[in-house]
Amino acid sequence: MNNFKDFYDSEEKREVLSVIVVNKESVLSRVVDLFSARGYNIDSLTVAPIHNSEYSRMTIITNGRARVIDQIVKQLNKLVPVLKVIEHKDAIEKDTVLIKVPIDQNLSDLDVIARAYNGAIQNVTHEAVVISATDEPKRIENFIKIIEKFKPLEIVRSGVVSMER
Amino acid sequence: MNNFKDFYDSEEKREVLSVIVVNKESVLSRVVDLFSARGYNIDSLTVAPIHNSEYSRMTIITNGRARVIDQIVKQLNKLVPVLKVIEHKDAIEKDTVLIKVPIDQNLSDLDVIARAYNGAIQNVTHEAVVISATDEPKRIENFIKIIEKFKPLEIVRSGVVSMER
Repeated sequence: MNNFKDFYDSEEKREVLSVIVVNKESVLSRVVDLFSARGYNIDSLTVAPIHNSEYSRMTIITNGRARVIDQIVKQLNKLVPVLKVIEHKDAIEKDTVLIKVPIDQNLSDLDVIARAYNGAIQNVTHEAVVISATDEPKRIENFIKIIEKFKPLEIVRSGVVSMER
Repeated sequence: MNNFKDFYDSEEKREVLSVIVVNKESVLSRVVDLFSARGYNIDSLTVAPIHNSEYSRMTIITNGRARVIDQIVKQLNKLVPVLKVIEHKDAIEKDTVLIKVPIDQNLSDLDVIARAYNGAIQNVTHEAVVISATDEPKRIENFIKIIEKFKPLEIVRSGVVSMER
């Protein structure tokens, strides 16, 4: 059991958290500070207001030891402006990426690939094309790898939004 | 000119900022704190690592008086872990929403509407359907309004990601 416990404590896992908070200017800092105080990096964070409410919903992706994440979740639950914390087990996750590539690349190929990842060509200028894709985070990573051959000038990812199935 | 200046100072405007920061656990707090210290709410925030780099990119949407936002941008630029601040003027913006509706709603209608907003049905259980949409923030607001008649159980927005055209 001790071995198992050590393993459990030392193994890093990817954790997807949704945190429902009161929509006030100081709340985001307080939540983010809980992670940085433990030296925990937030890999991806999205925050947006919840429709017709006084609340915002944060989706946080972090990697860390299970025990430390449990502590963070407990402390999040203690913060007054936090209404609810959801530790996702079986969630739909979506990530969006915008990529700018030089105009001299093959536009038909770009269009076909973007559409395979639920995206499209978003803008064309004399210098560059911007394409989008929205898909699961792992598929977005694949998409970025494929687009590398088109010599991307700029890549922007949104961070992950998630909802339990 | 004085009148114009007063107007400029008092008028709230929507501002889209991209902030390129060193990918370290304390940086997100420091950036967010700059806003909350002035009582400024961040309406939408997305953070994700920049591919093949030591940096992360934050997209921040805020509403405020131009002068205060100018001050925030100046202070952001002074922070050591901040590499660059972009005040977007003509950007492509994308927002993603996931909406869960009860299973007894018209699925064909849901499918057609979701596809009109670059989305799709993402999951179906015995109780509920999850649909997605990815579009400009204003169109996502329209989408949410239309879906209201399907009695949504849960609505999650990602926050905005943006890139200059």
